Amino acid sequence: MPAASLLVVHAAELVTLAGPSGPRAGALQGNVQVIDDGAVAVDAAGSIIMAGPTTTVLRQVDRAPDALVLDARGRAVLPGFVDPHTHAIFAGDRVREFEALLSGVDYLDLLTRGCGILHTMRLTSAADEEELVDRAGAALDRMLVAGTTTVEIKTGYGNTTADELKLLRVIARLAATRPQAVVGTLLAAHAVPLEYRDDPDRYVDIVCRSTIPEAAAMGIARFCDVFCEAGVFSLDHARRILLTGRQYGLIPKIHAEQRHRTGGARLAAEVGALTADHLEHVEEEDLAALRASGTIAVLLPGAAFMLREKRLPPARRMIELGIPVALGTDFNPGSSPIWSVPVIIGLACVQLGLTPAEALVAATINAAYAIGAGAQVGSMEPGKRADLVILDVPSYRYIPYYFGATLVDTVIAGGKIVVREGRIVR
Amino acid sequence: MPAASLLVVHAAELVTLAGPSGPRAGALQGNVQVIDDGAVAVDAAGSIIMAGPTTTVLRQVDRAPDALVLDARGRAVLPGFVDPHTHAIFAGDRVREFEALLSGVDYLDLLTRGCGILHTMRLTSAADEEELVDRAGAALDRMLVAGTTTVEIKTGYGNTTADELKLLRVIARLAATRPQAVVGTLLAAHAVPLEYRDDPDRYVDIVCRSTIPEAAAMGIARFCDVFCEAGVFSLDHARRILLTGRQYGLIPKIHAEQRHRTGGARLAAEVGALTADHLEHVEEEDLAALRASGTIAVLLPGAAFMLREKRLPPARRMIELGIPVALGTDFNPGSSPIWSVPVIIGLACVQLGLTPAEALVAATINAAYAIGAGAQVGSMEPGKRADLVILDVPSYRYIPYYFGATLVDTVIAGGKIVVREGRIVR
Ligand SMILES: [Zn+2]
Ligand SMILES: [Zn+2]
Repeated sequence: MPAASLLVVHAAELVTLAGPSGPRAGALQGNVQVIDDGAVAVDAAGSIIMAGPTTTVLRQVDRAPDALVLDARGRAVLPGFVDPHTHAIFAGDRVREFEALLSGVDYLDLLTRGCGILHTMRLTSAADEEELVDRAGAALDRMLVAGTTTVEIKTGYGNTTADELKLLRVIARLAATRPQAVVGTLLAAHAVPLEYRDDPDRYVDIVCRSTIPEAAAMGIARFCDVFCEAGVFSLDHARRILLTGRQYGLIPKIHAEQRHRTGGARLAAEVGALTADHLEHVEEEDLAALRASGTIAVLLPGAAFMLREKRLPPARRMIELGIPVALGTDFNPGSSPIWSVPVIIGLACVQLGLTPAEALVAATINAAYAIGAGAQVGSMEPGKRADLVILDVPSYRYIPYYFGATLVDTVIAGGKIVVREGRIVR
Repeated sequence: MPAASLLVVHAAELVTLAGPSGPRAGALQGNVQVIDDGAVAVDAAGSIIMAGPTTTVLRQVDRAPDALVLDARGRAVLPGFVDPHTHAIFAGDRVREFEALLSGVDYLDLLTRGCGILHTMRLTSAADEEELVDRAGAALDRMLVAGTTTVEIKTGYGNTTADELKLLRVIARLAATRPQAVVGTLLAAHAVPLEYRDDPDRYVDIVCRSTIPEAAAMGIARFCDVFCEAGVFSLDHARRILLTGRQYGLIPKIHAEQRHRTGGARLAAEVGALTADHLEHVEEEDLAALRASGTIAVLLPGAAFMLREKRLPPARRMIELGIPVALGTDFNPGSSPIWSVPVIIGLACVQLGLTPAEALVAATINAAYAIGAGAQVGSMEPGKRADLVILDVPSYRYIPYYFGATLVDTVIAGGKIVVREGRIVR
């Protein structure tokens, strides 16, 4: 056993989220595993050596001479949050459009009028790589302060193959420079660019013949995603895109059944997608298909809240059926300008009826499995990356209770303290 | 014109909320009054000398030799938030009960079973003054970081006259020691203590014959409030309490029509209440009565959100009718453990359909009128207390858009910087 270079001790509540190992196995357990007066020891490489009762950890783990010891008395210590669904690279914002949405304008209407996503696509295509790295970096900083230590980022605001590859390079630069672990997803089929409005098949051709092969060759994206929605990409488009992606080694993910039921969830099961995301409009047979395929449901209550959706995903039914549920922010400038996982946990409890424990599982270990990182992050287990969040309250249960509050005091990413007293350590 | 000892200059957006003067007049205007590249000058006594375009303010106002100048380039500067409805003095919390509420247990059921408010009353009655000052002080600190510079606090968790008087002394101590302006409300009729369960009239007798007279004599509370609700205090109880309060110089306020329509709104009009609070279950004729009496509607979307109310107050209709609308957190350990006015503004926009401008008016100038402080705070006008919030975004419009985010960088209360970079300055 290596010596500890960092020890967090005497946590009022050490919430390990430890579970059975192996792909997706952890995704199914709903027990958050709380240790009272807990400690976690971290080695010089930034990996977890051991998590357990403070007395046990102090007895069993040697300490490096210069080891740093953090006393977490009165505080809950959790694994860092994993955000498995964001659109964090874009230029501009849509604060004025948000006011139109509030006054009752429909989101898909805006899209039809060339506003919405298309507006962001124009600005993002015009922006250079440097500017996008800076902007997304600022967003990642805000996420870090809110406790997110692993984040999935999708492309999707590029107008052309070249733009989408530019966004992948931005993802690679963020992954190389940011304290968070960053996982990339190619979402070339996010909106039909204006010039292909009358012939979306041609745009899908370009995505399948050029964007996907070239993107896959870069080795940055791990997943291929598609926005399957009435008036955007059809079920056939989505199938073709996901199968092409799979052929090039990109694991399928899908935006499914958000505003209408279009068959996206069953397609997820058919193509073996790792996740089906949104799912506001699923029916029982869709759930049966997801359950049979072992697909993870990624729920995005921020978008549903901001868009004032009447219909919410049947989260309780999913959990009842044993479908693993993960939570994401869906951070994007249009429908969910929310970057805080704690806010999403609150919305999931209040609006989707998850218990605080279920919501925490969904925002850590299940979210990790939802981006293929279940063996590396999402829980405190030996060998995993030491990503930790220290709250200024004694229990994780306060996250939904003190809804919207900033309770994160300290964030540790890969064994390094990156946030202290709620502020980024440079 | 006095010399400025503090100047905030070059605000990307100086949102003055200035309006016509005189009691409640400002409450009716929905225009937030934005000045681009704005400045505000503050005198040594902590009062606003002038707010206007930076060039004008710099030209017209002399500067004291040691004047502090804050550059607010790229930032929005607003009046400090006014929270006109809180229950901030209590012992314990109800985080476990919140999980029961989430799982579907009814709030009024909990009360009937001696849980809910009664649990908090037991703990609060047992706590000494010192402990309550410390606890409420910590809550007020959190409010301050979120931008609240004026706060109304209700008693209501005392079991006896003596307990309620103790809570008033806590309010007086907070008012004397905290950077915020604190306004006190006597809410002796918050819940029927367990021992009067079978004879609530007797408890109302005590409130009217002993609590109200003794409380009024202390000169700490300015308002008398009552929780008028099915199974709690009846309309007749409420009338008697509010009229008794009025007789002793306490201005009536009322918790009305929250879970059921019990006639509280019309009673508010009848007794000339300054505000009627909650109003989820009002009907059109109630609104007509409120409009005729000039009563301010204090909406509390935090409680409605946390309790997952199906029915929300008809905020748009109120505004249409010209009823002044204010927003409060209703901060309390049971139904709304939310202390952040920005979170409430976000909920008001998303769930009640207020525009960001209407929500800001409701959380500043209208909230000030709702606690009789419209001439002192709630807008940037000469002679008012210099309570300012500097956001780290260029417009107030980002408050609901970046829902749940912490956007407050600097808070100035009575001309003193009390929060800097999101942290309290000691
Ligand atoms: Zn999305
Ligand atoms: Zn209340």
